[in-house]
Amino acid sequence: MNKEYPSAVLERAVGEFSKLPGIGRKTALRLVLHMLSKSDEEVSTFGRVFSTLKQDIHYCKVCHNISDTDVCEICANPKRDGSTLCVVENVQDVLAIESTMQYNGLYHVLGGIISPMDGIGPQDLQIASLVERVQGGGVKEVILALSPTMEGDTTNFFISRKLQPLGVKLSVIARGVAVGNNLEYADEVSLGRSIVDRIPFQ
Amino acid sequence: MNKEYPSAVLERAVGEFSKLPGIGRKTALRLVLHMLSKSDEEVSTFGRVFSTLKQDIHYCKVCHNISDTDVCEICANPKRDGSTLCVVENVQDVLAIESTMQYNGLYHVLGGIISPMDGIGPQDLQIASLVERVQGGGVKEVILALSPTMEGDTTNFFISRKLQPLGVKLSVIARGVAVGNNLEYADEVSLGRSIVDRIPFQ
Repeated sequence: MNKEYPSAVLERAVGEFSKLPGIGRKTALRLVLHMLSKSDEEVSTFGRVFSTLKQDIHYCKVCHNISDTDVCEICANPKRDGSTLCVVENVQDVLAIESTMQYNGLYHVLGGIISPMDGIGPQDLQIASLVERVQGGGVKEVILALSPTMEGDTTNFFISRKLQPLGVKLSVIARGVAVGNNLEYADEVSLGRSIVDRIPFQ
Repeated sequence: MNKEYPSAVLERAVGEFSKLPGIGRKTALRLVLHMLSKSDEEVSTFGRVFSTLKQDIHYCKVCHNISDTDVCEICANPKRDGSTLCVVENVQDVLAIESTMQYNGLYHVLGGIISPMDGIGPQDLQIASLVERVQGGGVKEVILALSPTMEGDTTNFFISRKLQPLGVKLSVIARGVAVGNNLEYADEVSLGRSIVDRIPFQ
């Protein structure tokens, strides 16, 4: 029994919460005490949802986004433009791009980003299936929409080397100053990119 | 199916996390995606711990603190002074006071604080059992160590009305300026209390 807490059951519950990113042991204890103030039914429902989460969750067999159906709603939608693929890291990025309402093509969800520090290589991501998808024909443009970080750049570079021989148009989302921000607060790199990648004034 | 997410399973998992205090839907989604990157075993262990949490957790039958045993380690310790009871809101406060190493008496954990706004009345707390404990004899002093808030003051007042007829010594933890803080940053109320409740210089 851990001496920090008066109970091994409490210790285990706090331990499970504090494994989550951004949750320390103090917050974890607060969350566990909050749960103890709830009904048996509410707490056991919480537990049941997660005990079968990995078995319950399914992925679209085309774009690999999280989906309850074999082919997700976006891939199955005949109104979407199947000649354009947007490559993103995860489902959060799909939701973010969908909420802009500026994109009508399909997605390809890598399920992560190349990160040697975390031991994630190209074989851990849905890159082979992206190449297959482009080889299958019908795709005219692939938009690389990964985070503007070193890992994102590495992954962009790796994917571009795989796709360039296939003759598909490759583009990358624009980097520059964020809309609505005062220019003096923009970081040097973004401001520099915004000048180098300037576009004709419309 | 909620339209916000591409999957009802995902929606349910995010919903469960976002019920917790301080966790919004964006953080909840991040936590669920983090879990999906973990092994089946790790995630199902997380779920199992919480699905039986309410059944697994037990309370000390004397002080009502969380404990794996019928009587907790503090109550069962013969070296502790059984003539002094410290009344606290929850297990976090017991841990906080224990870590000061300034207290050698026993505790009484109320399991909350009187809060009409949240629908918590005296009957929802371990107040009747506190009165019984004092009536049982052997207790010389009861220290009220609740938060210095309106709810804490209300609870202190209610408990004092119940205990005063029993002839036990009642005290309340000192309120004043926090140790280590510069005086100019102390709030007016605490500073005022520190002057009114001044003690002889030793």
